[in-house]
Amino acid sequence: GGASRTRDWAHHGAPMFADLTVHEMKAVRSYLHAVEDMRLTSASSETLKKNSILLMELHIPKKHKALNALDRGWARPSRQARVVIQFGDQTKPNITEYIVSPLPTPQSHEVRTYKKPITFESRPMTLTEYNFIIKHLEIITTKAHKLLFETTGGFSFTNCTNRCLTFADVGPRGLGPGERRTWIILQRFVEGFFIHPIGFEVLINHIDLDPEKWTVEKVWYNSMYFNSVEELVDKYESGEVEKVKLPDHDDNDFYSTYIPRGHSNTPTNIHGPKLVEPQGPRYHVDNNFVEYSGWSFSYRVSSSAGIQVFDLRFNGDRIAYEISLQEAIAFYSGDTPAAMQTKYIDAGWMMGISSFELAPGIDCPEIATFVDLHHYFDTDKPVRYKNALCVFEMTTGGPLRRHFDSDFHGGYNFYGGLENTVLVLRTISTVYNYDYIWDFLFYQNGVVEVKVSATGYIHSTFYTPNGLHYGAKVYDYVLGNLHTHLIHYKVDLDIAGQENSFESLNLKMMNFTNPWSPGDFIVQPKLHSTEHKTERSAAFRFGKKFPKYTHFYNPNKKNKWGHKRGYRIQFNSHADSVLPRGWREENGISWSRYPLAVTRHKDHEHTSSSIYTQNNPWEPVVSFEDYIRNNEDIVNQDLVAWVTVGFLHVPHSEDIPNTATPGNAVGFFLRPFNFFDEDPSLSSRSTVIVRPGEDNQPQVQRWTPEVVGHCVTDKPFSYDGFYRKV
Amino acid sequence: GGASRTRDWAHHGAPMFADLTVHEMKAVRSYLHAVEDMRLTSASSETLKKNSILLMELHIPKKHKALNALDRGWARPSRQARVVIQFGDQTKPNITEYIVSPLPTPQSHEVRTYKKPITFESRPMTLTEYNFIIKHLEIITTKAHKLLFETTGGFSFTNCTNRCLTFADVGPRGLGPGERRTWIILQRFVEGFFIHPIGFEVLINHIDLDPEKWTVEKVWYNSMYFNSVEELVDKYESGEVEKVKLPDHDDNDFYSTYIPRGHSNTPTNIHGPKLVEPQGPRYHVDNNFVEYSGWSFSYRVSSSAGIQVFDLRFNGDRIAYEISLQEAIAFYSGDTPAAMQTKYIDAGWMMGISSFELAPGIDCPEIATFVDLHHYFDTDKPVRYKNALCVFEMTTGGPLRRHFDSDFHGGYNFYGGLENTVLVLRTISTVYNYDYIWDFLFYQNGVVEVKVSATGYIHSTFYTPNGLHYGAKVYDYVLGNLHTHLIHYKVDLDIAGQENSFESLNLKMMNFTNPWSPGDFIVQPKLHSTEHKTERSAAFRFGKKFPKYTHFYNPNKKNKWGHKRGYRIQFNSHADSVLPRGWREENGISWSRYPLAVTRHKDHEHTSSSIYTQNNPWEPVVSFEDYIRNNEDIVNQDLVAWVTVGFLHVPHSEDIPNTATPGNAVGFFLRPFNFFDEDPSLSSRSTVIVRPGEDNQPQVQRWTPEVVGHCVTDKPFSYDGFYRKV
Ligand SMILES: [Ca+2]
Ligand SMILES: [Ca+2]
Ligand SMILES: [Ca+2]
Ligand SMILES: [Ca+2]
Ligand SMILES: [Cu+2]
Ligand SMILES: [Cu+2]
Repeated sequence: GGASRTRDWAHHGAPMFADLTVHEMKAVRSYLHAVEDMRLTSASSETLKKNSILLMELHIPKKHKALNALDRGWARPSRQARVVIQFGDQTKPNITEYIVSPLPTPQSHEVRTYKKPITFESRPMTLTEYNFIIKHLEIITTKAHKLLFETTGGFSFTNCTNRCLTFADVGPRGLGPGERRTWIILQRFVEGFFIHPIGFEVLINHIDLDPEKWTVEKVWYNSMYFNSVEELVDKYESGEVEKVKLPDHDDNDFYSTYIPRGHSNTPTNIHGPKLVEPQGPRYHVDNNFVEYSGWSFSYRVSSSAGIQVFDLRFNGDRIAYEISLQEAIAFYSGDTPAAMQTKYIDAGWMMGISSFELAPGIDCPEIATFVDLHHYFDTDKPVRYKNALCVFEMTTGGPLRRHFDSDFHGGYNFYGGLENTVLVLRTISTVYNYDYIWDFLFYQNGVVEVKVSATGYIHSTFYTPNGLHYGAKVYDYVLGNLHTHLIHYKVDLDIAGQENSFESLNLKMMNFTNPWSPGDFIVQPKLHSTEHKTERSAAFRFGKKFPKYTHFYNPNKKNKWGHKRGYRIQFNSHADSVLPRGWREENGISWSRYPLAVTRHKDHEHTSSSIYTQNNPWEPVVSFEDYIRNNEDIVNQDLVAWVTVGFLHVPHSEDIPNTATPGNAVGFFLRPFNFFDEDPSLSSRSTVIVRPGEDNQPQVQRWTPEVVGHCVTDKPFSYDGFYRKV
Repeated sequence: GGASRTRDWAHHGAPMFADLTVHEMKAVRSYLHAVEDMRLTSASSETLKKNSILLMELHIPKKHKALNALDRGWARPSRQARVVIQFGDQTKPNITEYIVSPLPTPQSHEVRTYKKPITFESRPMTLTEYNFIIKHLEIITTKAHKLLFETTGGFSFTNCTNRCLTFADVGPRGLGPGERRTWIILQRFVEGFFIHPIGFEVLINHIDLDPEKWTVEKVWYNSMYFNSVEELVDKYESGEVEKVKLPDHDDNDFYSTYIPRGHSNTPTNIHGPKLVEPQGPRYHVDNNFVEYSGWSFSYRVSSSAGIQVFDLRFNGDRIAYEISLQEAIAFYSGDTPAAMQTKYIDAGWMMGISSFELAPGIDCPEIATFVDLHHYFDTDKPVRYKNALCVFEMTTGGPLRRHFDSDFHGGYNFYGGLENTVLVLRTISTVYNYDYIWDFLFYQNGVVEVKVSATGYIHSTFYTPNGLHYGAKVYDYVLGNLHTHLIHYKVDLDIAGQENSFESLNLKMMNFTNPWSPGDFIVQPKLHSTEHKTERSAAFRFGKKFPKYTHFYNPNKKNKWGHKRGYRIQFNSHADSVLPRGWREENGISWSRYPLAVTRHKDHEHTSSSIYTQNNPWEPVVSFEDYIRNNEDIVNQDLVAWVTVGFLHVPHSEDIPNTATPGNAVGFFLRPFNFFDEDPSLSSRSTVIVRPGEDNQPQVQRWTPEVVGHCVTDKPFSYDGFYRKV
């Protein structure tokens, strides 16, 4: 029938969205290394003057081709790889992107361009470049050895065993395009080094491909700036600089560690409640194709931005062609130069690749399905990220729907209920200090929740009294710096087809004569809909009033009751803009101007950011603002919603050792709004209905086994329903 | 030691907050029935001209007395009951409240007064009065029998078996103080009758204590108004009224029922994931005293408003003296007179008493602790509400904290994680059609989440074309009417003592010369704190910009790092005001003007609403606005935060058969903000740390058993940590 054909086509199309296989990656590498003009060499060779593959990942097919496979069962378009190559061994070094196809046996490659050329200085960092940074830090710290040793009570960057220093670097790497100079923070290398700054920051200019030509441009120590390490050292020795003497590091000070301490009145040395599946899983995972309840979707994890869902359907009806993470930023304030400079734009840190192993029982329940991911970045071989993605069903511990139908006389007409279970798709990106938990939650009733929770270490800098304007002291000499997290998602809704329109709903207060009591007045709100006909009118700014409902619908498809079939986006966010519009780095994150913006779908507008934004936010190669600048008509078109969520984070003592997830989750819901004719969770056989039978004995009507199973309870479900006088 | 003494005193004080026992209720009743002047009779006798007990519940002691018990271990003040008596058998009928004490052997009663007298017409409805309403409806429907029978295809109010009509009544009961006239909606009495309006509404004036004198004031049928049933019937017969002929009721039409229908690709006829406690519970419930992780608190369920938490402590430190549900309203719009009139104010419908039995595995997990509640309202005996409250610990399926500490070379320094489990305290109020799920969630890290989820049946009215301005058609002839849910909570925070101050935090953009690159500028936000020194300045209005952080702190208590110990309230809400300020019924819900208002604590300002507001919202006996009108100083005082949350609900087809919880939950978080010196969840022994050991074998450090147990998994926890080239 139609339903099973629909299901088969979705399944048939899923491989279009599957990440590159190890085999494909190796084939692409071999193919490109055989292109003589490119003169590709190993990514790991210790020089910056080389041509090598920086990044390789799936290149998504054009939407109309993919839809032919998904909606008509046609052959899938051939698979393609996007490859980023750094040509350092050229007269004019450059970064060039190629599309390589077809996979798994490449025959051709063609250049993929952006509106602007990719500046070479905007490329992401590689291990090779970090290794040269480390060598420079060795020189710097050797010069300042005595100062560092005295300041830290015996820590050094080199020749150390358990008293080592390490570093953190911040972005962007300069003050304008074409620069590549980085503020670096020195830290004690202990467990949780992110929150052990020692009060020494250094600005290294590493723009030259010959690391010998790199220079130290500034040094910051104890609130003073110096033009060179030598100047600092001289002034330190001559007493022109106040010496900082940090407390000795105590190996028994658990401050930055996870080691338990303190007391609790109730036991925590036993396991808490756990999830079990007494009757087995109720979802299917077939490679990157997942089915649960009425849902089906494909997923992948882009190396740059992270998790993406494609061809999301409910009961075979597509809800969204794509829902994908685009970017995450954290813009900081502070009193030290590194703190003032820190504007992390995480796709440039390969947020997608930074999806490391998930721990069963902590990161995902023990019963989860764990999946390996494979990435190819700054490497000569594909890298396996074991158990980096998980899928599981969980109970939320409450009802999806329930009603107790009292008879108001101590009895009841019926009780009905359905437990709220949800399928979760999860990865966690550890972008250096922070850990972002990326969740997609699929509810039985056609609702999708997209959510990010923040945990991991705060980005901290050395405490100064002036720093208190920008955060809180969280330890001796440590300031937790205030910052705003903003996350951007692409949501290519296709509601009952590709042709959609968009409206916002608000209330308008009415005042009219009471029809049953003339002389009196009825004051009540009525629905006020605004159809947004152009991209500009559908780009909502932060700081302006946001509509009560934002509604995407197919103007030509009605549900059974005559309403336009639609979905709405509901925000759960405390986001706000981070910089004045157009101010320098803000140009790189023009998407962050809008909690919601709606555009016409374009294959070439497939992301709102790029891996180059971090190191050139001033003149970004991908600028979201361009997508709405032409102010296209968005009536009855293929629309894409772009959603920004986030929150202000003022660190506080309870962020030590790590930011905790409760209260630190934001996201959005996609909710059916007259899309179905009734709640589609009605198809669930997990429903329980109880009615008073003869002699008021409860008659339980159910479609699942009476007994859950011995691990949960051997007792059958019981319900009384009566409330009795005593 | 101090910690255990603190714990003992909290435990010692808990009975002060325990609801009345059956024994106490019976004693109070006997005592009052023995007071000859009162001439009390049975609540169930079939007359309105009687004196009888309407409501009896615990009367909370004054705070300073309770604190003597809680903080010094002094004897608990004697228990008292609040009793509401309706004196219908008087020359001037009245409602009088008494405080009866001491329990369990009452000796005295004294009148408890409000600022205004309680108008007799504002009393809640009783079964007796409903029985007279039913008798009147029998007369009305008999007169209109033919019309109703023809309209509904064979349904009638009397002499029916499986083709019966029933009714819903709406509030308020009139247009101004002193009125008691109610719009009543007729419905088909089938499973889920709330969404079966038949298009017949009638306004009955039932102000007289002699039901013989009650009158029909208006009738509404098919968009027309009539002054009497007779007028309608005459015009119906004469053809002056267009006849509605509803489709016949099909017993196989499951529309308003929970009966499953439709198909799902994945199995739902087996049980989904369930919670188990493989090593037993980690919390204690001793009557109304609960302990979990560092938390302890007492709870009760007020008969009028519902769930309340008292003496909430973490590691012995009180965080809040009281967090209590105050009121829930739903204000509707519509085209029929009942819809236009509907402004439900649920304390007047005994929202607290309407906490019926919770179903294990649906309303709360099977492993929950279920507790009976007892109430005394409109009864001659206490009523037991079996399993009406539950307490359970659950896993959220993810981490509270976690960090993967990459070494950026395919390995890791360490992995640390702590599973996020939470204790949930829950009741569910079924206020007629709606079911509100009231949750308190206690996280291991000192965070409390207070949350309400909405489910149950929508309040619907008969569909008219004009009704589409006020909602959506959800079935033949049925309109789901738009409405706003607003919920009010009292949050008596006592942060590190009773003397607290309140500030809001915002960001202020700075612009100054770049200290390391003169000629360039740093633009970054800094913290901007506003101390709110008076009640007016701390009363935030809907529609105005709300601060980023709202912070309650003790100005004289610092944490280890010198910051004022504090907690902040973080909102998760889409609330907005429902009516223009001061417009009629809005006076009864003046609390709803403010997402947050902060007042000085007063024992006599213990609630923001009353059971009388529903039937007299125009001149309410409790008006929240009075609490802030004197604009007291709130610096270093005992403060109370009053929190309004809610959302606009525009019904849609997916609200059939019931509103579902996903996306329909709002609430707030209480989050420590420099209250502790570090994250207090560090005391949890459920932490897991993994470090690469010799030969890079993972070394797992944990304080819980290695194996969870056979129901979850027999495999020990495993982690690799490496990401390897392949
Ligand atoms: Ca455009
Ligand atoms: Ca679209
Ligand atoms: Ca006051
Ligand atoms: Ca207080
Ligand atoms: Cu943060
Ligand atoms: Cu509602």
